[in-house]
Amino acid sequence: MNALLLVAHGSRRDESNNEIRALTKALAPKVVDQFDLVECAFLELAIPFIPQGIQALVDQGASYVQVLPYFLARGTHVAKDIPREVAKARVANPNVTVVLTDYLGASDSVANVLRDIAVSTLDDSTS
Amino acid sequence: MNALLLVAHGSRRDESNNEIRALTKALAPKVVDQFDLVECAFLELAIPFIPQGIQALVDQGASYVQVLPYFLARGTHVAKDIPREVAKARVANPNVTVVLTDYLGASDSVANVLRDIAVSTLDDSTS
Repeated sequence: MNALLLVAHGSRRDESNNEIRALTKALAPKVVDQFDLVECAFLELAIPFIPQGIQALVDQGASYVQVLPYFLARGTHVAKDIPREVAKARVANPNVTVVLTDYLGASDSVANVLRDIAVSTLDDSTS
Repeated sequence: MNALLLVAHGSRRDESNNEIRALTKALAPKVVDQFDLVECAFLELAIPFIPQGIQALVDQGASYVQVLPYFLARGTHVAKDIPREVAKARVANPNVTVVLTDYLGASDSVANVLRDIAVSTLDDSTS
C-alpha cells in the first residue's frame, strides 16, 4: 500500500495549518490511482509531527511512504531538519520504504503557476 | 509599461535569496508578452525591500506594477505586512497602478504541481 505525506512547516495560526489540511484533501483525488493514503504532517508547531505522521500511515498498512516537503526554498528545514525526522521514521520502520522527494520550490512547474497568476490578474485588471 | 515584482520573504542565507533571483529569471521569458520588466524583492532580510523594488520599476518607466507574493500560506506576512509595504509604494507613486495579486499557495494549480512531483518520484522509485 502506497502513502503520500505532505509535510509543511506548521504555524501557530490554526488557519495556516488548516490551509495545509485542505490542500491535502484537494491533492488526494488527484493521486488516487497511485496513492492509497494521503495525509499531512508538520515539522513543528502543529500536529502530527513527521515521525508520527509516517507511523500513522504505516499503522494503516503502508509499505511505501513518500514524504513531500511543501517548502519554497532549500533552507535548513529542507536540507537538514526534514531528512532528520524522516530518518527517525526509517529506524522505527525498517521494513517500510520511506522516500523523501524534492521540495515544491524545486519544481520547474512553479514558474508556470506564477505565470498563470500574473497573467490572469493582468487580464482582470484590464478587462 | 507593465512590470511584475515577485515578492519573497527573504532569508539570512544567500542561497535561498539566490533561488528567488533564479526563479525570477526563469519567469521573465514566460511572461515576456505581458510584462516588460520582471524583478524580485523581499519582505525582510534581503534587498531590495518591497518599496525600493517597486520604485526601481517605476524609475525604469513602469506605469503598472503587479506584486506577486511568493508565499504558501495566508499568514501575517501575506495578510498584513506585504499590503502595508505595497501601500507605501502607492503613496510614493500616486500616478502608478500598483496591484497586489493573490499569493502562490492560493492557486489551485499548486496541487497539480504536488501531484506531478509525487507521481514522478513514484515512477522513479519503481522503474
